[in-house]
Amino acid sequence: MPHVYETDGPAIYRESFAIIRREAELDRFAQEEEPVAVRMIHAAGLVDLASSIHFRGDAVNRAREALERGAPILCDARMVSEGITRKRLPADNATLCTLHDERVPGLARDLDNTRSAAAVELWRPYLDGAVVAIGNAPTALFHLLNMLEAPDCPRPAAIIGCPVGFVGAAESKEALWSSTSVPCCIVRGRPGGSAMTVAAINAMADRSE
Amino acid sequence: MPHVYETDGPAIYRESFAIIRREAELDRFAQEEEPVAVRMIHAAGLVDLASSIHFRGDAVNRAREALERGAPILCDARMVSEGITRKRLPADNATLCTLHDERVPGLARDLDNTRSAAAVELWRPYLDGAVVAIGNAPTALFHLLNMLEAPDCPRPAAIIGCPVGFVGAAESKEALWSSTSVPCCIVRGRPGGSAMTVAAINAMADRSE
Repeated sequence: MPHVYETDGPAIYRESFAIIRREAELDRFAQEEEPVAVRMIHAAGLVDLASSIHFRGDAVNRAREALERGAPILCDARMVSEGITRKRLPADNATLCTLHDERVPGLARDLDNTRSAAAVELWRPYLDGAVVAIGNAPTALFHLLNMLEAPDCPRPAAIIGCPVGFVGAAESKEALWSSTSVPCCIVRGRPGGSAMTVAAINAMADRSE
Repeated sequence: MPHVYETDGPAIYRESFAIIRREAELDRFAQEEEPVAVRMIHAAGLVDLASSIHFRGDAVNRAREALERGAPILCDARMVSEGITRKRLPADNATLCTLHDERVPGLARDLDNTRSAAAVELWRPYLDGAVVAIGNAPTALFHLLNMLEAPDCPRPAAIIGCPVGFVGAAESKEALWSSTSVPCCIVRGRPGGSAMTVAAINAMADRSE
């Protein structure tokens, strides 16, 4: 007996978002934040994630405006850059992941840091007005925050800060929240990851569901 | 003041896995399953995930043997195929994602199904003895299960079944668990995703932490 299941992609999306809106606590989100939170919950399969998602500095509008201006999206992992849906991007925006650049291993040694942090050094020429999407490495976010302590470091338009894990992830996101004025979206605590980071970008890039 | 944080990659892994082993309920896992579950928990940042991870049919050993024989890894999404750590693969295994094959849109119309399901049709020539890694689409897993109802359909060596979401994800994983004899690993319920699927493959491919 073949398995019977919903095979209509748009219907699956509609029904998924309807379930999330029935079950998740979304009241505290601003109008433009709510669809972003819904997509992040969708990517994780966790309605309880709602309480951990936080936006600051009009991040959704700032990110969308930046993307409409053609800003690149700077990603800490190829799972992030590869996951972003190209056709949702308003200006055929570049999605850049420098992690596998040949300079990274040497740079990591010089900085005495991880390859993920070293890769962020290579973002400098693209950072001004960019959208940053960190969905994996706490060290990438921490290194970016340290770069931004220098007043002459270019400022991104918005930072999606969702590194995941047990060492430094929660701390790096709290540091992002409290130590910069760059508009940001974070997932508090240990959860995070490339899927919810991609979901945030996909929702910010295009209002359509 | 620069942020101070752990910058030694191997130390971050060691400490992360130690925290997971202190906090998560791992007793019911077999010896070869435990490091796979630990890596899946690590990828999600959720110790409670332990209770949702289930293995059947000696899946870890079957997957590892298949990879050592050179089996390809068939992935439902590029976030999965891109996330797998190449240097952990024992035989420079191919990681194949057919989702963006030019035949997929037409096939999806013919099958009256999603592109994710249609892409699985294109796995047939590679399916015999392969390792399947489904971390996104319930329709991909359901379509594979329906393909496997035909006795002459080639059998994969193991299926990592971790589609995520609110429509069909939980159901597709229960169908995998109960309707085939193919060794498998699932995450019960709505959670899942490319990161924990990649983590399972990375752990099965190489015992080293």
